[in-house]
Amino acid sequence: MKISRTSAGLAGIAVLLLSTAATAQTAPSAAELAQQGDDPAWAITEGLTTEIGPRQAATEAEAAARRWGVKRLTEMGFQNVREEPFMMQTWVRGAEEATLVGPFQPQKLHITALGTSASTGPKGLEGDVVYFASYDALVAAPDNLVKGKIVFIDHQMKAAQDGSGYGQYGRARFTGANVAAKKGAVAVVIRSIGTDSHRNPHTGGTNFEAGVKPIPAGALSNPDADQLVRQWKRVEAGRAAAPLRLKLLLTPRNLGQQRSGNVIAEVAGSDPTASPVIVACHLDSWDLGTGAIDDAAGCGIITAAAKHVMTAGQPRRTIRILWAGAEEVGVFGGKAYFDAHGREKHAVALESDFGADRVWRVDFKLPDSAKALSDRIAAAVAPFGVVRGKQPANGGADIGSLVAAGVPAIDLAQDGTRYFDLHHTPDDTLDKIDPAQLRQNVTVWAATLAILANSTNAELP
Amino acid sequence: MKISRTSAGLAGIAVLLLSTAATAQTAPSAAELAQQGDDPAWAITEGLTTEIGPRQAATEAEAAARRWGVKRLTEMGFQNVREEPFMMQTWVRGAEEATLVGPFQPQKLHITALGTSASTGPKGLEGDVVYFASYDALVAAPDNLVKGKIVFIDHQMKAAQDGSGYGQYGRARFTGANVAAKKGAVAVVIRSIGTDSHRNPHTGGTNFEAGVKPIPAGALSNPDADQLVRQWKRVEAGRAAAPLRLKLLLTPRNLGQQRSGNVIAEVAGSDPTASPVIVACHLDSWDLGTGAIDDAAGCGIITAAAKHVMTAGQPRRTIRILWAGAEEVGVFGGKAYFDAHGREKHAVALESDFGADRVWRVDFKLPDSAKALSDRIAAAVAPFGVVRGKQPANGGADIGSLVAAGVPAIDLAQDGTRYFDLHHTPDDTLDKIDPAQLRQNVTVWAATLAILANSTNAELP
Repeated sequence: MKISRTSAGLAGIAVLLLSTAATAQTAPSAAELAQQGDDPAWAITEGLTTEIGPRQAATEAEAAARRWGVKRLTEMGFQNVREEPFMMQTWVRGAEEATLVGPFQPQKLHITALGTSASTGPKGLEGDVVYFASYDALVAAPDNLVKGKIVFIDHQMKAAQDGSGYGQYGRARFTGANVAAKKGAVAVVIRSIGTDSHRNPHTGGTNFEAGVKPIPAGALSNPDADQLVRQWKRVEAGRAAAPLRLKLLLTPRNLGQQRSGNVIAEVAGSDPTASPVIVACHLDSWDLGTGAIDDAAGCGIITAAAKHVMTAGQPRRTIRILWAGAEEVGVFGGKAYFDAHGREKHAVALESDFGADRVWRVDFKLPDSAKALSDRIAAAVAPFGVVRGKQPANGGADIGSLVAAGVPAIDLAQDGTRYFDLHHTPDDTLDKIDPAQLRQNVTVWAATLAILANSTNAELP
Repeated sequence: MKISRTSAGLAGIAVLLLSTAATAQTAPSAAELAQQGDDPAWAITEGLTTEIGPRQAATEAEAAARRWGVKRLTEMGFQNVREEPFMMQTWVRGAEEATLVGPFQPQKLHITALGTSASTGPKGLEGDVVYFASYDALVAAPDNLVKGKIVFIDHQMKAAQDGSGYGQYGRARFTGANVAAKKGAVAVVIRSIGTDSHRNPHTGGTNFEAGVKPIPAGALSNPDADQLVRQWKRVEAGRAAAPLRLKLLLTPRNLGQQRSGNVIAEVAGSDPTASPVIVACHLDSWDLGTGAIDDAAGCGIITAAAKHVMTAGQPRRTIRILWAGAEEVGVFGGKAYFDAHGREKHAVALESDFGADRVWRVDFKLPDSAKALSDRIAAAVAPFGVVRGKQPANGGADIGSLVAAGVPAIDLAQDGTRYFDLHHTPDDTLDKIDPAQLRQNVTVWAATLAILANSTNAELP
């Protein structure tokens, strides 16, 4: 359903009263259904991670996941279920080895390449290591300290409930390789942007500026980074012969333009004058794990909530479900959705892409007309342990272009304390999901979505 | 120092009184030293795992570890520091890949080969999977169910403080491959004998009977085993097309006879009529981790305790430290020690090979003459949270031949609740060691060793 910006203002007082009454009846029903019935969120998360597993963007596995999604969403009774394809530059992993070759007994480290890393070539690359305690220390370093070396970037990311370390420490991954390349490094290795202590390095994209020639870039697991640092400190202190030598073998490949796509489904609303509510997750995952918390669970949560609203009775607004493709590697799906639908009116946008642990806070970025609406939502989710935040909602990657263009947003913020133990690692698997917390998500989402989908045009134009 | 069985009985009442007085003075000092001073247990554990890292039996890394050990033990002031070499059959890991290839979207599983596994050859091996819920179910199965198939053995090992699940569930690893091979399986894959939920499979030895041709044998991590089981259950229930297909690539090699060795050091005792106390750990490790809990920590603990006893004053008995080689792959070091020294008299044997978590129980297997001695030890360790057990001491692998031949033993049993989260995995790394618990081990060992090394010949002949 497409609604122009101009037609969205037509709703009058009569509609407001009608939909408020409807809200009072249907909102509890959807939340109750979410607490009682069968569990489509678990079924989707379990099915997608078991039957497809890893589903890297623009690979055959992601295409299989789209087919799986269209079939499942159709079977669940959603309307307008479809794929919306797009093309994208595609990078895939190759061999991955790192060896500390001197001055001590050679030993292997666990490494994984960062997305868009260059290849070392099949024979690998060996070099002297130069250590930086942080991304900022690398930025401040003179070029001659870096030139011809393998840069190692250390840091001390710790777990936080709101995941707030990711932006700050993540710079080592997002742009550390670019900085090192510009200073003449032959390769860059970072401590994983992660909070666990297992031999599972965290992957993720890195970005080289236009005109900067990519260099090999990888992440060590935390125990492996610890090991490199202990050896580095001995060398630095003169307790072992300099230099510290590292050998890397990383052979990723660029496959050029390949096909990815979004999967879209709807709960058709009753009122053609009402703009839709969009709820998003992403269908693709990094290749190392099976993408359970990132982001099969998100797709399970939003879809289960929409299903419960649908079962409770046709809402006034359409709920549009977006299972975005290719989020991990550059939010290509979110951008493709915006290119195709950004000129349509959207009432409000929400995304679930932060694991499967419980919702603990709700944040709003709504027009002034929606003050009472936000109060209703805050009251509806409070019984499930959700507090009202003081900061504006962010929105999330796949709805980022919509929110940047002015679409209102609500964040049902999840507990991220253990999110960066698992995110982008081989350990992102189904066993990490707590069914009780997943169900709390669905309940909170169903309660919120029922209110939003029956909100008035005056509240959300 | 060598003491024959016959000369050991010469100690008289005078010696008993003298050494009892000495015990009262020196025992607290050694334990106090262990609580106060610098921490040689941490230094050994950190040094060995950092500077050598993985040290598989009869490889160059294990030889480097022996050289490292001789140097370190000499620097610490121990006497009679030496290597005692031996030769052994040696097996090393190759490529390791497993892929679920049907009926679902192909996906890779994390696998590691079990010691003595045969190779699949460089092209790998593909076959139908047949599932067994337990080792016993495989044993009970008719041959025609197994012939030509890849056997998968599942089980439900859970963590226990005393590690008691290892023997029962471990059979899947110890002899599951042998059972499967005799029934005509082409390969065997087991759920890791481990209690964690990370993508790090647990290795360890498996044993084929003489006359049974080895087959490829590997272990999946717990999340990977879960994945295989979920797919198997869909196929078994007719919800997906049979059969479940698995492709394996395991290319380990046998290197024939290679050199390994034990490292031995002593605290020389003052009384030539007194038989020595032997304390053991093992220097080799599996190749996947850096062998921090298994068993660098054990070597750190026994060595630190002996050092504290030495610093507190020369003991009456010699303390012999055995850093055994090649424990993991068949206790070759323990057997070589017994071949060389088994006819010498040993007063009592102790081993530390169960991680670095705290000692929680002390068990004895001592002659009747040592009743008062065991009471003194139980009283000395009680302040550190150690309870007296009701079962006889086991001894441990490297001193197993000595104990089987009648040498008395004491177990300072460690808390194994998380031991099988880490044991034989890539995650056996230094960061898993809690320095406070490591120090408690040293204190308890120092208190025990001080009493034992000053016990009378009447108590321990």
